[in-house]
Amino acid sequence: MRILLFGASGYIGTEFINQFQNVNGIEVICVSSRRPDGSSYSYRELSRMIVDMSPTVIINCSAYVGGLSIINCENRKDMTIQSNIIFPQMLGEICNGSDIVFGHFSSGCIYNGYPDGGFKEADEPNFTFKSNNCSFYTGTKVLAEELLKDVPNKYIWRIRLPFDERNHPRNYLTKLMSFDTLVNCDNSISNRRELVRACLECIINGVPFGTYNLTNPGYIRAYEIVEMAKKILKLDKEFKYFEDSETFDEFRKIPTSNVILNTDKLASVGIKMTPVHDSVEWSLKNWK
Amino acid sequence: MRILLFGASGYIGTEFINQFQNVNGIEVICVSSRRPDGSSYSYRELSRMIVDMSPTVIINCSAYVGGLSIINCENRKDMTIQSNIIFPQMLGEICNGSDIVFGHFSSGCIYNGYPDGGFKEADEPNFTFKSNNCSFYTGTKVLAEELLKDVPNKYIWRIRLPFDERNHPRNYLTKLMSFDTLVNCDNSISNRRELVRACLECIINGVPFGTYNLTNPGYIRAYEIVEMAKKILKLDKEFKYFEDSETFDEFRKIPTSNVILNTDKLASVGIKMTPVHDSVEWSLKNWK
Repeated sequence: MRILLFGASGYIGTEFINQFQNVNGIEVICVSSRRPDGSSYSYRELSRMIVDMSPTVIINCSAYVGGLSIINCENRKDMTIQSNIIFPQMLGEICNGSDIVFGHFSSGCIYNGYPDGGFKEADEPNFTFKSNNCSFYTGTKVLAEELLKDVPNKYIWRIRLPFDERNHPRNYLTKLMSFDTLVNCDNSISNRRELVRACLECIINGVPFGTYNLTNPGYIRAYEIVEMAKKILKLDKEFKYFEDSETFDEFRKIPTSNVILNTDKLASVGIKMTPVHDSVEWSLKNWK
Repeated sequence: MRILLFGASGYIGTEFINQFQNVNGIEVICVSSRRPDGSSYSYRELSRMIVDMSPTVIINCSAYVGGLSIINCENRKDMTIQSNIIFPQMLGEICNGSDIVFGHFSSGCIYNGYPDGGFKEADEPNFTFKSNNCSFYTGTKVLAEELLKDVPNKYIWRIRLPFDERNHPRNYLTKLMSFDTLVNCDNSISNRRELVRACLECIINGVPFGTYNLTNPGYIRAYEIVEMAKKILKLDKEFKYFEDSETFDEFRKIPTSNVILNTDKLASVGIKMTPVHDSVEWSLKNWK
């Protein structure tokens, strides 16, 4: 099986590399989503390049997330549209009508709120350009999903606030511990190592195509996480809290999603992620 | 010659229909840029549809301009991205590598300012998402041009503030006369009937592919236009003026381009538009 990996140097992409190295029968080719000079590929160029490499699977981990904060997407709209809409759309078109399986990362932040049991994959996103209530980043992720809806042989993996046990500026736990003020709402979050393993299981086990929420079962709030960090990591810091997301949005200056996702679909195809409190606790206990 | 016309019911599209009716040897097929239910075509659907109709030329007059004001594009980002970026990109990809000539409308508003002799077609746009100083509408028009840059067999026609002698809510002269407050800056503007004739001449005469500024030679300011209207149409109204565009932008709440475009390239291929003052005067004298 030959996998073409776009965005291999990013926070999610590097974890794919880590895990691929241990899987027999998989050859990984890391490809940049941009030309060597930083400009964007044309459709024909990208298509020719992909056909030449004849992959079995394309995984797109590339995205513009504004570096350390999606706030930066508001001021880099060209880059955000190009990376998060145009590029995945091109990949989708190339895979559509071919035998190539397409795996694309989306975000659980296309939802906001707490319906009974959490948002299911088939629920209509409610944090979108259409409803004019979302950040620019989130709006582009929704549009990409819409543009990919006719591609049959694809996985859309929705993740949220990735974290694991390695201290890293993109790690949600690292971020939380570095902030002074937190919003105290329940949220679904995704262990980076587990989510990547789940993607590989989707591909290797050939589970039905479609959209999957790849968040750890359950939900957790910032307060619980930093209290665990105080206990386990001896973190000596006091935090201030916004108790509602509206005040937090004003503080942050962009709309922020707070949401619980339903994880039954992933479980139903036999792929397990550990309950969120266990996963966070393990990460903090193995912090490095 | 078979021409596929997208956006035939719009302000520019209807004028194409008017003028096509008088041209022998041209068959025009009007096609909607959206499915009957208002949703967007997938690439494959659009591609199949176009191949079935085997056109010689595709003209894309469709765009989302926010109805009567581009201000509305700020709140309809999904529609704006879909119509102004994704759709023309798909058309470009379909034309690229085929014999179909592609004609696409862009906007002179991707520039702002007054360089010596006006902005030439090859000048880098300076009112863009990249420079983070433009309206959402303008940003999407720039991105579409970038995505079409590898399509060889295309015309990009840049127009500005279209007007003619027919009173119409999209007519720039109608708009100016309806406002109470105007910005008093020099601007290039485009007579709708002349710009459409210029497009047809590009196609029929087979002028070299590329980008053309389709504005009337010269420049004019709001003050001059309403003074002409007072004299010719006996318009009895006093206007207030913003003397600089910054104050106007604050008033309007989005960045507005004020710009002079260079029209030498169009003239160099033998296509004439009348000097802007003559064209405005003629329109007001024949106002209906």
